[in-house]
Amino acid sequence: MSALIDLPRPYLLFLGDADDATFLKTGLGLRDWAPALCVAEYKCDGALASLGMPVMRPGEAHAAGARALVLAMASIGGGIREAWIPCLLEALEAGLDIVSGAHDRLSADPRLQIAAERLGRRLIDIRTPPADLPIGNGRPRTGKRLLTVGTDCALGKKYTALSLAAAFRARGLDADFRATGQTGIMIAGSGIPIDAVVSDFVAGAAELLSPAADPDHWDVIEGQGSVFHPSYAGVSLGLLHGSQPDILVLCHAHGRENIVGLSGYPLPSIGEAVSMSVRLARLTNPAARCAGVSLNTAGLSAEAAADAIARCADQWNLPVADPMRPGRAFDELVNACLA
Amino acid sequence: MSALIDLPRPYLLFLGDADDATFLKTGLGLRDWAPALCVAEYKCDGALASLGMPVMRPGEAHAAGARALVLAMASIGGGIREAWIPCLLEALEAGLDIVSGAHDRLSADPRLQIAAERLGRRLIDIRTPPADLPIGNGRPRTGKRLLTVGTDCALGKKYTALSLAAAFRARGLDADFRATGQTGIMIAGSGIPIDAVVSDFVAGAAELLSPAADPDHWDVIEGQGSVFHPSYAGVSLGLLHGSQPDILVLCHAHGRENIVGLSGYPLPSIGEAVSMSVRLARLTNPAARCAGVSLNTAGLSAEAAADAIARCADQWNLPVADPMRPGRAFDELVNACLA
Repeated sequence: MSALIDLPRPYLLFLGDADDATFLKTGLGLRDWAPALCVAEYKCDGALASLGMPVMRPGEAHAAGARALVLAMASIGGGIREAWIPCLLEALEAGLDIVSGAHDRLSADPRLQIAAERLGRRLIDIRTPPADLPIGNGRPRTGKRLLTVGTDCALGKKYTALSLAAAFRARGLDADFRATGQTGIMIAGSGIPIDAVVSDFVAGAAELLSPAADPDHWDVIEGQGSVFHPSYAGVSLGLLHGSQPDILVLCHAHGRENIVGLSGYPLPSIGEAVSMSVRLARLTNPAARCAGVSLNTAGLSAEAAADAIARCADQWNLPVADPMRPGRAFDELVNACLA
Repeated sequence: MSALIDLPRPYLLFLGDADDATFLKTGLGLRDWAPALCVAEYKCDGALASLGMPVMRPGEAHAAGARALVLAMASIGGGIREAWIPCLLEALEAGLDIVSGAHDRLSADPRLQIAAERLGRRLIDIRTPPADLPIGNGRPRTGKRLLTVGTDCALGKKYTALSLAAAFRARGLDADFRATGQTGIMIAGSGIPIDAVVSDFVAGAAELLSPAADPDHWDVIEGQGSVFHPSYAGVSLGLLHGSQPDILVLCHAHGRENIVGLSGYPLPSIGEAVSMSVRLARLTNPAARCAGVSLNTAGLSAEAAADAIARCADQWNLPVADPMRPGRAFDELVNACLA
């Protein structure tokens, strides 16, 4: 039986040889969303970037409880840089496994491969999905599920899911964040990189990710892509069907009018996106409904954001909030999810 | 740059050690749809199954022009049976490459692997998609495209596409059948096994499969799965978006009321299936339209089939035909595709 990716924890966050925070998106996400999993940060000698955490070398971090070094930054091109290799070898020697979301496989470097084998350490590439995933079976499962969906890629589906899972738990509910992308998997400590799964198994992977649970348990599932995206709609639809969500939250970025990176693809309206997403979701969960909109208002002043949120809520007659701006609007979105 | 799977041809069809035709679906498809590619049949000593073709051993077939031995039957479980190995080695020795759609990889057998290396032969597993597939870009392409879509799996999408491509050519048009499944790829001699592609690349693979062409050229693309199937809808949607079809032909099996192999999943009505398929297709081709219905009437008498076709056409006000039953109805479906 296949299982989710399950990462050794807690982590030592490796920042490589970066001098600024541009490439630290994964590290920032881990620091902000999984502080209990992050023991310290570590970087190449002389590098200037920092997450503002305690600095430890691998041996020290292992003594403090760390079990894996996580590549918490990206490189241009997504590879593993030569300058990192001595640091990664030091981590293996210190008893840490290595977790990477880079394009290059860790084991493709013979130095890492040989050291890991000699020391009995694991090299974990989280772009590699679990083996032997099942075909989706479409059977209903117990427990409650929420999936974040979007009008486009890269507009807050992961942070919305993390925020909602945290809000559910703050209300005393039993809720798990279920990760489908690399940073999400590192934050959750487990998950499936859904866009790396062979297409025939996407719905089955999503079923595995949010298995049958107690009737009152919530799985809050990180969405991927968009059913309105000409490159990735198939991934999003397989995830939607396999997740069998009771609740959808539609994520949108204020002011975005076109699919990022493509020409000739205007975004759907909020209303069109809600109605199509719910219609598609009802294939596997006839009770699926949209609880509201997560509106990314990054870059707006507090006033302008409140105004954009209020106008969107009026126009579509739905609860709307930016989870990055806690307050009454977000509380109402949470209420609507749980109603 | 990645390319389609491109098979060495013509073929010697290998029937293994089967005694009856139950497992010969691929062989029957090749014999019926690609007779010019099939030099002869070949089987283990004593096996009784036959496609009714000339029988040749590999050396003889090679002398007659064959360039590949094709595993033209399935085994229970999809593996490569021990009894076949001596025959496959004989084929390699005779100068033939081997083409397989089995679950087991040919190269996983060291005897085949070593012989192929020594002889400079290729072991081609058509379940393995090409490397380095692109992400879909959604850009319009020149040329005309038709995609067969379905209310379910396994109801005639491949045969419908083959029949329409043949009918287009019979009318003097320049038309290619574009294969997305194993048997289809063997029939076409090239293609991409779309359900084996990593989900992120499905739309890109479909774009590669039906590239920009002369304005009057038709690609007639083999559909896979169904956007109404809870296990495979994502595959179908990625193929739909990447294919950018001008024309959809909806395939349905007369009398089928539920998704095969699942409980609780009634098929959509023809009307619902047409309207949803066209709506989804219009994301990447705003001019997409459904030309009609391919109704699988296998098992019905000629009279009952004609009646079922007429009733379906009346009910939905669309051209309806069973491509396995040539005649006026099919001619009208072809007219509607080309209108």
